[in-house]
Amino acid sequence: MLYVAIALAALALVFAFVKFKWIMGQDTGTEAMQIISRRVQEGAAAFLRAEYRWLTVFVIIVAIVIATTLAPKTAIAFVFGAVASGIAGYVGMHTATRAALRTTQAATKSLQEALGVSFSSGIVMGMSVVGLALMGVAIFTWLYTRDGGYTTEALNEVLGFSFGASSIALFARVGGGIFTKAADVGADLVGKVEAGIPEDDPRNPGTIADNVGDNVGDVAGMGADLFESYAGSIIATMILGVATFIGAADASEAGANMVILPLIVAAIGVIGSIIGTFFVKATDEHGLHSALFRGLIVASVVVVAGMAAVCFGELIAFPETLADGSAAPAPANYFYAIVAGLIVGVVVGKITEYYTGSGTKPVTNIAKQSETGAATNIIHGLATGMESVALPLVVICVGIALAYGWAGTYGVAIAAVGMLSTLGISLGVDAYGPVADNAGGLAEMAELPKEVRERTDALDACGNTTAAIGKGFAIGSAALTALALFAAFNETLLASPRVQADPGAYSLAITEVNVLIGLLMGGMLPFVFSAMTMRAVGNAANKMVDEIRRQFREIPGLLEGKAEPDSARCVEISTAGSLRQMIVPGMLAVAAPILMGLWSVQALGGMLAGALVSGVSMAIFMSNAGGAWDNAKKFIETTGAHGGKGSDAHHAAVVGDTVGDPFKDTSGPSLNILVKLMTVVGLVFLPLFLR
Amino acid sequence: MLYVAIALAALALVFAFVKFKWIMGQDTGTEAMQIISRRVQEGAAAFLRAEYRWLTVFVIIVAIVIATTLAPKTAIAFVFGAVASGIAGYVGMHTATRAALRTTQAATKSLQEALGVSFSSGIVMGMSVVGLALMGVAIFTWLYTRDGGYTTEALNEVLGFSFGASSIALFARVGGGIFTKAADVGADLVGKVEAGIPEDDPRNPGTIADNVGDNVGDVAGMGADLFESYAGSIIATMILGVATFIGAADASEAGANMVILPLIVAAIGVIGSIIGTFFVKATDEHGLHSALFRGLIVASVVVVAGMAAVCFGELIAFPETLADGSAAPAPANYFYAIVAGLIVGVVVGKITEYYTGSGTKPVTNIAKQSETGAATNIIHGLATGMESVALPLVVICVGIALAYGWAGTYGVAIAAVGMLSTLGISLGVDAYGPVADNAGGLAEMAELPKEVRERTDALDACGNTTAAIGKGFAIGSAALTALALFAAFNETLLASPRVQADPGAYSLAITEVNVLIGLLMGGMLPFVFSAMTMRAVGNAANKMVDEIRRQFREIPGLLEGKAEPDSARCVEISTAGSLRQMIVPGMLAVAAPILMGLWSVQALGGMLAGALVSGVSMAIFMSNAGGAWDNAKKFIETTGAHGGKGSDAHHAAVVGDTVGDPFKDTSGPSLNILVKLMTVVGLVFLPLFLR
Repeated sequence: MLYVAIALAALALVFAFVKFKWIMGQDTGTEAMQIISRRVQEGAAAFLRAEYRWLTVFVIIVAIVIATTLAPKTAIAFVFGAVASGIAGYVGMHTATRAALRTTQAATKSLQEALGVSFSSGIVMGMSVVGLALMGVAIFTWLYTRDGGYTTEALNEVLGFSFGASSIALFARVGGGIFTKAADVGADLVGKVEAGIPEDDPRNPGTIADNVGDNVGDVAGMGADLFESYAGSIIATMILGVATFIGAADASEAGANMVILPLIVAAIGVIGSIIGTFFVKATDEHGLHSALFRGLIVASVVVVAGMAAVCFGELIAFPETLADGSAAPAPANYFYAIVAGLIVGVVVGKITEYYTGSGTKPVTNIAKQSETGAATNIIHGLATGMESVALPLVVICVGIALAYGWAGTYGVAIAAVGMLSTLGISLGVDAYGPVADNAGGLAEMAELPKEVRERTDALDACGNTTAAIGKGFAIGSAALTALALFAAFNETLLASPRVQADPGAYSLAITEVNVLIGLLMGGMLPFVFSAMTMRAVGNAANKMVDEIRRQFREIPGLLEGKAEPDSARCVEISTAGSLRQMIVPGMLAVAAPILMGLWSVQALGGMLAGALVSGVSMAIFMSNAGGAWDNAKKFIETTGAHGGKGSDAHHAAVVGDTVGDPFKDTSGPSLNILVKLMTVVGLVFLPLFLR
Repeated sequence: MLYVAIALAALALVFAFVKFKWIMGQDTGTEAMQIISRRVQEGAAAFLRAEYRWLTVFVIIVAIVIATTLAPKTAIAFVFGAVASGIAGYVGMHTATRAALRTTQAATKSLQEALGVSFSSGIVMGMSVVGLALMGVAIFTWLYTRDGGYTTEALNEVLGFSFGASSIALFARVGGGIFTKAADVGADLVGKVEAGIPEDDPRNPGTIADNVGDNVGDVAGMGADLFESYAGSIIATMILGVATFIGAADASEAGANMVILPLIVAAIGVIGSIIGTFFVKATDEHGLHSALFRGLIVASVVVVAGMAAVCFGELIAFPETLADGSAAPAPANYFYAIVAGLIVGVVVGKITEYYTGSGTKPVTNIAKQSETGAATNIIHGLATGMESVALPLVVICVGIALAYGWAGTYGVAIAAVGMLSTLGISLGVDAYGPVADNAGGLAEMAELPKEVRERTDALDACGNTTAAIGKGFAIGSAALTALALFAAFNETLLASPRVQADPGAYSLAITEVNVLIGLLMGGMLPFVFSAMTMRAVGNAANKMVDEIRRQFREIPGLLEGKAEPDSARCVEISTAGSLRQMIVPGMLAVAAPILMGLWSVQALGGMLAGALVSGVSMAIFMSNAGGAWDNAKKFIETTGAHGGKGSDAHHAAVVGDTVGDPFKDTSGPSLNILVKLMTVVGLVFLPLFLR
């Protein structure tokens, strides 16, 4: 079974490679386009180099800490997890920046060809993430369980891989989130407002950095976030599989199958995703959204059919009893849980679209409130974001309750795996947006004909919708993954000899004062973390503003278009600034659970639950408020409602959009990482706290 | 002992009455002042009448529900709790509106006399709250435990009193919070912006409503909030006293003393508060703050000394063993816990002052960020509010950990009582601010000489600082009270026969899926509740705006000062609008725990904890962000920094202030009620869920 997973992971990587080669074979357009594109490529590469330099130091230090306090095996898995996620990010960015150029060129011919190139780029990212994550988890599971079989200890060592991926996610999502908004704000503030030149103007030294930022935040950041969810949910389910079906006994074949089941689900998901890609074809702009959605549906149908075959057809042996001797759920129940996960993912995405999509009621309401000024725009944007917390959490909780009813805690975790099973294509759908966005920027900068820009705009508009759905999906999967990891934390805790000897002293009841203190402290952290990341954007943007002003001042002829801006320097400064700004919030995410765990494991349990509870709500609130503000502004701009562009209502909406930028692109998504990373850290270091 | 508590409660009421009589004996100034003041008085009375009409319906319905599903005794206590809190609110408002007139007149003579009148008005409120709450709790305890002794059941019936107070708090705090901001926004928007007349101008039909709003929100709302905390923390401690020291056995004298101890602490607090009032005297404006602070310190010292005498001198018998047979804490430990509570209250208040006070670093930083526009002002205000969540929660958690270490869960609850023991004077310090504010408005409307306004402004400025501290105190005490009530919930649950028969089925471990679902749902509620209350302000304000516009349009000669505005109509509309707007959030707060409890008691426990965790953080975030924006704007206005009044930075700061208004005066404080009310509802109805 493990070999099948490894083989399908390899297939995903081969598919990504083939798609990549195909993209590289496309027409690269005029020389002007190539020069601009090369700058973005170099900028993105420069960012990654700088990020990976920081990361190398971080990974080495943490690996040493793990090796000395826990186990060298965990440290090795940790390093490989970091490297795998890093490679996936590199491949995704590398492809996206090259695909943008070719998408622009394809857009000179037809919408369909432009969609083909940009979507293929997303698929390269999606398949790389899925392939590398699945490959890594499967190989380390094979390596670490070869001798001793499936034990909690061995799988906790495999979890090092997930921790490594989380570390990259922290840097990519938080650092990238800061970078993208700092570059955006800096370029806009000096270029558009002070120098009075349009957006994406090649004279603006910050334009390249802004375009790099789209790749850094939306491609690499989103990819790393979901890499973490994907690997984390699979390993968490495996740990729960051991606790539920095997316990301290030797694994029966059927019990072992349950440990491997998440890998099977993921492997079938790879097949589904690949098949799904062949259904993404559109001839006009109205068909774009349904084309992408069709691909997702096909992939989901394949997963459902495949799992139905596995569970109803009993293609593998299912256990009849649990580790504690009680009756195991019927095979069909696992199927239901997986389907529930898939549905929850789609529904949460759709709810996000309702609250943040263009032209929906909440969004047009915010646009309307802009008529009475920035304050009412802000109040209603915040209220919309807060209100939007309710439905996704209700849906997630219903999903949890159902999955638990079908197959216990293991059912909740396998539902998370089900939700993420089609990640290969859903990440592809999501990551095509920034490519289209960049392609539009390129068309602008290279002064291509109007119809090219119209085609890329159509792609971009659809990309905004899929991005909204994707953000909801990312939060939903982060919540379920954190829950699965948290459940694994609980089971590992309960199974440890020290706790078995004195269960009362490690009770995680909310009646325990330490658990309550942990809950309160954990619930507070997302607020502090958000404050830090919001401030970080401002600080990094200030550095960027200073540099752009300096170039306009010191480079003669720049504003007249006679001299070249030093774009690379802007990227460097924004990179250094954003990476430095993420040290403190990053330290907080890693250090808080370790310090808490050293004080009290009960408090650590409370802290993880508290961070999960308020972190998920905050993430939804901030992401959706930001998304709603963004589209309220666009609604006024594109429809001319409430006075259209340049009106007072528009100015008010711009204020909301500016506030929403760090909400939706920095703080909100960073909270996904916070809740997962804290739980992974708590779980990885649990043996240390229980020593 | 109960008689002593009743006697001291009576003393508090007598002291309040004497102070009230003294205020009423003061000079009432010119006829013009009296006419304006009478309008505010009538408006405030009209609001209360309307509010109490709604409340009567609500109270009758809930009383019937309680009587039929729980016990008639609980229903009776519920009705009396509502009536007592209602009377306290009525007395406070009645006095405040009359004291404002007399403060204005006193300000024509000297600052000291003006302070005397306005502070006395606050004391009337503080002493009424403390006297009525203590009296009610003591009498119902006496009534309900006369026959059967101290049992969990009997005290759960007494808790009906607290639930009644909570219901009033909901209407007063949420409804009042909506009213005050709707009136404020409405009066400003049409009066200042559209008609171009200054603030507090008698021609503006909304001016009276605005002044009524200050009383409704800051006097009655704050009073009801703290009435609830005061009564709730005392009864929760008594319930924990039974669980900890008596259990199922008959009460020993020493055990009974522990049940009564919170009443003793409160009674000594009454003495301390009365003594403290004699130390509040100031001759110039620089001495104002220290004069008020001196009063608080004296009151605290009396409580500390009194409790030292009780605990170290063992004036009462302390138990040597707990109900479970283990050794009881040393008497000194209760003393330490009470002192810890007092200190936590002061420190949390001081932290709030740091984040929101005038001229502090976070506030001037927001002012500075206003230079780059409304967006940066908003971002940094939000970040400041989020950041300010950390320290208060750390302080509260340290307090919890210490109090628990000294005297277990009972210690945490008695710490809450200690914190609230000096409420008689601390609420007085807090409630004097709105009186001074209204006095200033009166001086403006009656066109009194400049030095009068200067004196009331000095009082008002100091009132803003004490209000900031008071808000922090209110949140801190709400958090500790909710914790105490939650602990009582846990103990009552554990003690119930049904749970004792099958503890596993009612485990509140965060490993239980129902508890986790409850946590997630509970954590989400404060976001939804805040969204509702924020929106409510806008909706109620719109009605107000329409009415003021109508009057300017339809009443000939109004703008020229030749005709009288129909102020009463504005108050009516704002009242009806705000009370209607609070039905849905109010229902949510009451219905959510009942529905959850009917489904699963485990989920209810999780929900209460989740609401506590995210509710406290949200309350601090919203209150402090709002306070910081307010003072950032004032900083620019008064110091002329960043261009001063009328500059771009000032316009940006006004946007922040407007967003902050519902944050700090509606949603933030309403969350105090939400977390307490939900816990009270859960606890009161617990017997129903366990039937």
